[in-house]
Amino acid sequence: MFRDDAGSADVLVVGGGVIGLSCAWLLARGGAEVTVVDPAPGQGTSYVGAGMLAAVTEHHIGDERGLDLAVRSAARWASWAPAVEAASGLPVGYRTDGTLVVAVDDDDRAELGRVRQLHDRYRLPSQSLTTREARTLEPLVAPGISAALLVQHDTSVHNRLLLAALQRAARDAGVRWQPAAVETVLSSPRGVTGVRLVTGAELYADTTVVATGVAAAGLPGLRDVVVPVRAVRGEILRLATTGSSGPVLTHTLRALVHGYPVYLVPRADGEVVVGATTDERGQDVTVSAGGVFQLLRDARAVLPVVGELQLVEARAGLRPVTPDHVPLVGPAGPGLVLATGHGRNGILQSPTTADAVAGWILDGTLPDDAAATDPLRFTPAGVRA
Amino acid sequence: MFRDDAGSADVLVVGGGVIGLSCAWLLARGGAEVTVVDPAPGQGTSYVGAGMLAAVTEHHIGDERGLDLAVRSAARWASWAPAVEAASGLPVGYRTDGTLVVAVDDDDRAELGRVRQLHDRYRLPSQSLTTREARTLEPLVAPGISAALLVQHDTSVHNRLLLAALQRAARDAGVRWQPAAVETVLSSPRGVTGVRLVTGAELYADTTVVATGVAAAGLPGLRDVVVPVRAVRGEILRLATTGSSGPVLTHTLRALVHGYPVYLVPRADGEVVVGATTDERGQDVTVSAGGVFQLLRDARAVLPVVGELQLVEARAGLRPVTPDHVPLVGPAGPGLVLATGHGRNGILQSPTTADAVAGWILDGTLPDDAAATDPLRFTPAGVRA
Repeated sequence: MFRDDAGSADVLVVGGGVIGLSCAWLLARGGAEVTVVDPAPGQGTSYVGAGMLAAVTEHHIGDERGLDLAVRSAARWASWAPAVEAASGLPVGYRTDGTLVVAVDDDDRAELGRVRQLHDRYRLPSQSLTTREARTLEPLVAPGISAALLVQHDTSVHNRLLLAALQRAARDAGVRWQPAAVETVLSSPRGVTGVRLVTGAELYADTTVVATGVAAAGLPGLRDVVVPVRAVRGEILRLATTGSSGPVLTHTLRALVHGYPVYLVPRADGEVVVGATTDERGQDVTVSAGGVFQLLRDARAVLPVVGELQLVEARAGLRPVTPDHVPLVGPAGPGLVLATGHGRNGILQSPTTADAVAGWILDGTLPDDAAATDPLRFTPAGVRA
Repeated sequence: MFRDDAGSADVLVVGGGVIGLSCAWLLARGGAEVTVVDPAPGQGTSYVGAGMLAAVTEHHIGDERGLDLAVRSAARWASWAPAVEAASGLPVGYRTDGTLVVAVDDDDRAELGRVRQLHDRYRLPSQSLTTREARTLEPLVAPGISAALLVQHDTSVHNRLLLAALQRAARDAGVRWQPAAVETVLSSPRGVTGVRLVTGAELYADTTVVATGVAAAGLPGLRDVVVPVRAVRGEILRLATTGSSGPVLTHTLRALVHGYPVYLVPRADGEVVVGATTDERGQDVTVSAGGVFQLLRDARAVLPVVGELQLVEARAGLRPVTPDHVPLVGPAGPGLVLATGHGRNGILQSPTTADAVAGWILDGTLPDDAAATDPLRFTPAGVRA
C-alpha cells in the first residue's frame, strides 16, 4: 500500500464523516481492504451536529418519502450503538430518554396539533401531554408553554463520541487512513478506478465510495452522474453547566417559539447542544451574530436556565440536502458507490447507509427500499453508465 | 542577568498587560534595566477589552473622584498613541471619531438627560442631537431611538494592536522578558527586593512594580499593604463584517436599551467589539449564554445590522476594581510600586499610569493628583512601612 505515493485497496471511502466511517468499519469488518481518504476525518458536519435520532419529530412536512428509511434507521440504532461500543471499547452516549416537544404561543400550539395529526396518520408514536405533565418530566421547562407532546421514540447519540468510537473501531478492523484531499475521481473506460489526491498521488480500488457530504456535488470525475446536493448551513451552540449544578434536561427538548423551531439535546456530562438555524450561503461556515441570538432567545424562552449556562462553542455545519430530502445511497455505475445527501438526518441514517453500502460491495445485495435512495435518480437515463 | 536561574535588574515589572507594558517601555526608554515577568504577556484583561478611551461617557455615576485623572488620561492619548506607533513602527488604531450615545425607551431617554446634566455640571463636552442628526452621523442606527448625545471627546484604540505595539516598543527599548508566574514577592528588612518565580528562580531588583490586575489582590509577599482589588467579570463579543460589506459604524456607539448599557466599538477593518456585561463570579472567565444573549439583544436593538455580522469571538475578562473606583498607582513602601485597580479604565489610564510610575522610579517625582491614587490609602497607617 502507498508504495511510491500510490497504492490500491478493495475499497476507497472518500470522506471520513459519520457516513464514511460507518461504511469503512462495516466493510473492513466484512473482510474488505479499506482506505479512508479525508484530510480531517470526523471534523466536518458530523462533528458540528447534535446527534438527534429523530425519525418522528423531524417528520414535519407530511412527505412520506424517506419516512420508512428514517424509522428503520432509528430502529437500527438499538443494535448499532452497542455494536460500535463493543468494537471500539468507547462509549457513544446513546440515550433513549425520548423527546419532549413543546409549543409557546397559540400559533405554535396549533402547529403542534397539526404535527400530532401527522403522527397519527402515519402511526408514529406520539403522546399529548398536559403542560403540567410536561413540566413534571422536565421541571426546568418554562411555565408559560401552551402545549406538549412526548415522543418516546426519538433518541439521541453523542455525535462526537460516536465519531471517535467509529474511528477506533475502523482502525482496529484494519481500515487505513489517507489524510489528504481528493483532487478528482479517476475512471477507465470500464468505470471508476480510484482517486487522485491533491498531492498528485493516485489510489486505485475496485470500488470507490463517495461520502463527502456537501462536497460530493463539486467532486470532479463523477462522469455524468448528477449529484444535486446543496449546502444548507446550520448554526449550533454547545452550552455547559457550571460549577456543581447537575444536568438541566433529561429528554431532548424541541420547541416551536413564535414560529421558530429550536432543539436542546442533553448529554450525560451536563452539556446541552442547542440548534439549529437554517439558511443557504454556499460553503460559508461562519457563525452569524443573528443566528446565535435567535438560538439563545428561543432556547431561553422554553428553558430559562439556559441563560446561566456557559457558552462553550458556536459553530456552523453544512447539511447536504437533496431535492427530495432522501439521500443518495447505492451503486452509481461500475466501481462507484454514492453515500451522501443525508440532509439533517446523516447521523440517524448512518447505520442503514453503512448496511446498504457494505451489503452491495461485499455481497451484491441491496435493501428493499433501495429504489428510494437510488443515487442515479436525478441522472438522465440516457447518460447512465 | 538570569545567570543560574537568578538575576537582578533595576526594575521588575510583574504583569505584562497594558499597564505593565506601558510602564516597562517608559522605564526602559528612560534608561532603566527592566524585566517584565508574565507567563503570557498581553493575553489578559487588556486583550479582552474593547479599547474605549471614554473619560466622559464612562462618567455616569456623579462621582468626581477619578474624573480629573480620566480626563487627563484621555488628553494624554493624543501624544501617547503616535509615540507608541513611532517607537514600535506598528499601528495602534487610535480613532478620534467620537462617541454617539443613544437611548431607546422613555426611561432610557430620561437617564440620558441626567447624564447630559452631569456632563454640564462637570463641564464635560457633550452635545445633544436630534435622532435625525444621530442617524445622519450613523445611518445604520435603528430608527426607533428616542434621544442621542454626541461626545466628540471619547475616542478609542485597538487594544490588541496596542498590546502588540507596546511589546515591540518595550523589546526595542531593551526590556527583557521572564515568561513565568510569580510565586511571591520577596522582601528584606529594608523593603521589597524582588520576586520568586514558580520555577523556584529568584529575581532581584531595586524596584518591583506590581501590575497584575485582579491578581494583585492575592499576590503573596506584599507585606501588610492592603490591595482591595476585586474581579468584576465582563463578557465581550467580537463581530466581523462578512464578504464585501464595509464598516457598519464610524463612531463608537453607546446605548441604554431598556435600562441595559451596551457599547459597540468599530475598527478600521470592519470589526465591531460589543460589550460588556458586569458581574462578580470570582476568577471565573467563562462566558455565559445569558451574557452573550443580552449583548446581542441590545446591540441588535440599536444597530439591527449586527444580526448579519459574523460572531468571531466571545470572551470574558476580569476588571480589577477598587472600592472607590480609582486605581492604586504609586510607591507602596521601599522597593515596591503598585499599578493596578484600574477597573474598566485600564487602557484609558495606561499612559498616565506609566508616566507616574516612570516619573517616580526614574526621577522621584509624583504627579499633582498622586494623593487620589495613593496605593496605601486602604492600608491602616500603623502598618505602613
